[in-house]
Amino acid sequence: MSTTLFRRITIIGVGLIGGSLGLRIRQKKLADKVVGVVRRKASLQKVLDSKAVDEVTTDLAEGIGRSEIVVIATPVGSIVEQVKSIVPLVKPGTVITDVGSVKAEIISSVEKTLPKGIFFVGGHPLAGSEKSGVENARADLFDKTVAILTTTPKTNPRAFRKIRDLWEGLGIEVRVLSPNDHDLILARTSHIPHLTAFALVAALQNGDESFVASGFKDTTRIAASDPTMWKDIFFSNRKALLKEIKSFQVRLEKITSLIQKEEQDKLLQELEKIQAKREKL
Amino acid sequence: MSTTLFRRITIIGVGLIGGSLGLRIRQKKLADKVVGVVRRKASLQKVLDSKAVDEVTTDLAEGIGRSEIVVIATPVGSIVEQVKSIVPLVKPGTVITDVGSVKAEIISSVEKTLPKGIFFVGGHPLAGSEKSGVENARADLFDKTVAILTTTPKTNPRAFRKIRDLWEGLGIEVRVLSPNDHDLILARTSHIPHLTAFALVAALQNGDESFVASGFKDTTRIAASDPTMWKDIFFSNRKALLKEIKSFQVRLEKITSLIQKEEQDKLLQELEKIQAKREKL
Repeated sequence: MSTTLFRRITIIGVGLIGGSLGLRIRQKKLADKVVGVVRRKASLQKVLDSKAVDEVTTDLAEGIGRSEIVVIATPVGSIVEQVKSIVPLVKPGTVITDVGSVKAEIISSVEKTLPKGIFFVGGHPLAGSEKSGVENARADLFDKTVAILTTTPKTNPRAFRKIRDLWEGLGIEVRVLSPNDHDLILARTSHIPHLTAFALVAALQNGDESFVASGFKDTTRIAASDPTMWKDIFFSNRKALLKEIKSFQVRLEKITSLIQKEEQDKLLQELEKIQAKREKL
Repeated sequence: MSTTLFRRITIIGVGLIGGSLGLRIRQKKLADKVVGVVRRKASLQKVLDSKAVDEVTTDLAEGIGRSEIVVIATPVGSIVEQVKSIVPLVKPGTVITDVGSVKAEIISSVEKTLPKGIFFVGGHPLAGSEKSGVENARADLFDKTVAILTTTPKTNPRAFRKIRDLWEGLGIEVRVLSPNDHDLILARTSHIPHLTAFALVAALQNGDESFVASGFKDTTRIAASDPTMWKDIFFSNRKALLKEIKSFQVRLEKITSLIQKEEQDKLLQELEKIQAKREKL
């Protein structure tokens, strides 16, 4: 008798996140078989070399087979289309999940197209790197982070538990949020920091490069992230992002205005409050 | 015959920067004696334990003695006052320098008060940390960074060469800028990144803490920096800062507006340009 939790899991898109998930599932022996699906034949050997999956194919139907869980780990901008192409190929009862950084728009579209008996649970492990590709995948990428799962009134409880068991089985803490809350929180904790990092680099003038020290480098490390991925994230999350960017600008204006008005005491109080908040993270 | 470059150097303020400078001067055997001056008696033992200086005292006159170089390594907000209190105590020909993160306002004040035969050369090694205090000082803190020295029409060439020889003797590359250029460049490469890091932390809402990943932590590491130090820097450099913050806001608005107008192609082009610029740093 098999002691694994799942018989067969398919991962669509075996890059940094999909690859790290595959490595972790195999490390934890959570499934009898992990199958990867990639778009380009040229990626097949690289994925096999990474040992992130047991098998890899470019054929979507073959890759899905009779998997009970299909994880979509392709860029945010393609998730809805991926669900549409997967749905006709899966067996009844299959749970589709994703690892995308944006949730509301995707889940709203997916829930409109999902037939009865096929389930979707939105997921987002809070891990990442400015590096991409399966060659940077690591079984411990998700250590010390949490995986967010989103639920809506349409979420099937058994499907939800299956995806929760997957992440918890990998040793990763699960937090549950609504898609809207997820998108607002991620706007504040990830998307706007990326936006400001991009803007800081954009504002550098010719010749400034020689005077850049560790502070600037750390603050803008994430501006070296994949532009296509971030275009997709900014675009998919534009509603929450545009709301939260206003609140960031208000905070920036507040500090700037204290500097302008030469309010040294109030400026110090404000920075002390912020520093204490940062130290608690 | 002594082979050291300097006979006696005094460092006023033996914290992270002053302490690291002392350690480095001693490591490179650049002076016969390095003397530290601290404000509080309680700091004496800590400074001695750090081995950053040969001697340490709270008595300014005793600390300065017949030193040929006096380095002011106290917070930016106190540099001008420090120069005023040092001037009556130094021997003719002494060169005073500093390591402050802001230059124009300080140097303009100092040059107005400096008597004939006492010299000042503005300095700023581009090193630092969100940590402070002599207990975090390291002889290699300035490795892989540059030391900026500023010159004005009033700068004495021999005094300038003395301070240049000090930094180069420590193995640190020297770059020369005008005080105004220094302040504008540092606004873009350091002060505004600190300002945005503070604003990003300020914009976090209750409960967001559990969803903070490595991207946010790196981007806001510098928001854990000493509030008093940064209040002083922001305030001393307010002219350049308020000018450059506008240009940062223009860049941020540009990206935000591409997201808002759903200009996906232009957004991608913009992010690609920025990412390439970041990768070259």
